[in-house]
Amino acid sequence: MARIGLVRVLTTNDIHLLNIHGAMIEAFYPTLTVSTRSIPDHPDGVYDWETFKSAVPLVIDAVKGLASEGSECVIVSCASDPGVLESRSAVSVPVIGAGEATGAVAASLGTKVGVIGILPEMPERLREILGPSFLAYIKPPRINRTLDMITPEGRIAVLEAGMVLKNMGADVIALACTAMSTLGILQEMKATTGLRVVDPVLAAGLLAYHAVTF
Amino acid sequence: MARIGLVRVLTTNDIHLLNIHGAMIEAFYPTLTVSTRSIPDHPDGVYDWETFKSAVPLVIDAVKGLASEGSECVIVSCASDPGVLESRSAVSVPVIGAGEATGAVAASLGTKVGVIGILPEMPERLREILGPSFLAYIKPPRINRTLDMITPEGRIAVLEAGMVLKNMGADVIALACTAMSTLGILQEMKATTGLRVVDPVLAAGLLAYHAVTF
Repeated sequence: MARIGLVRVLTTNDIHLLNIHGAMIEAFYPTLTVSTRSIPDHPDGVYDWETFKSAVPLVIDAVKGLASEGSECVIVSCASDPGVLESRSAVSVPVIGAGEATGAVAASLGTKVGVIGILPEMPERLREILGPSFLAYIKPPRINRTLDMITPEGRIAVLEAGMVLKNMGADVIALACTAMSTLGILQEMKATTGLRVVDPVLAAGLLAYHAVTF
Repeated sequence: MARIGLVRVLTTNDIHLLNIHGAMIEAFYPTLTVSTRSIPDHPDGVYDWETFKSAVPLVIDAVKGLASEGSECVIVSCASDPGVLESRSAVSVPVIGAGEATGAVAASLGTKVGVIGILPEMPERLREILGPSFLAYIKPPRINRTLDMITPEGRIAVLEAGMVLKNMGADVIALACTAMSTLGILQEMKATTGLRVVDPVLAAGLLAYHAVTF
């Protein structure tokens, strides 16, 4: 068994909500055990450039804490990858960003990747990783903060965004906000659109699995 | 069990040599079975821009053949990714390039990725995927064709290139030529350099595993 640390960028006292990404990874990668820690002062998560910026130093602290407690690899469970590059210089273990992981996996699955996210614009690093396979980015209307996404209205808005991307010609949908992992929408998005779909927490888990296995 | 197709860009009648990448993937990802096919007219593999260019249409044909025989995902087992983008538009199943996969995994493991390859210059797509984490590219001296690498001298030249990259400050070594998978140098490179090392066939296997599992 390998010990993985996971940083949530949503501040919450709800233990089920806090641990849901770690539980997904443990379920799909049975050789991994996950310890989760959330950053402070972000009850609405990371959903714009201001909350992104304020998360960066807090993510670095959380990564350092998890590494010092014995995590062999740390996942930053946010698809905008706040503090990921900076954390890599701060600890000796690998740091996986859910956004980079989503981009890498999505680029392997098709040539016209449609991206759904919560930030007003798509993260630059994700654009770079998708390279010639990027098609379009959509922030669903009426979804402004992380918790808006994990509601019945959020589910409908995300599925609608998937259909818009499909109608634009997408062959892959990248779910570029880990609230969509919390929402558990992967299989429903596949069934609704008929396309390949990438879940950011499972993509991060895949790279963490590689990091601690080979 | 999921059926994976694998394209070799080395033309060979040696069944062991032909199947070695598939055997590695089956060993490390036990839910995958691999069918291998090699392209014609490349007895020295892909080792310069001329052999790269001539491989492209042959790879596309091989990917189409494997997909039509029931492969659920096809790996192009060459780190320069000849015909990968083109094949994606030609078949309905995912096509994984070993080069893209190596870049994606390497970028998740550190901030200063040293790359070892056989082409005179590094493939552009790999540079793009590594983004801010690219450090340097080395083609080992005296290694000019694929089969040069799978010799005792090739082993030494590759390990020396790893040490040069380490001395330049690399924290990750990306083995960007699948002849280094054939050489089986992953663990020796890790032991020699003390760094994280990415094997291109195992990286491609990882993304193929994702493609057929979630």
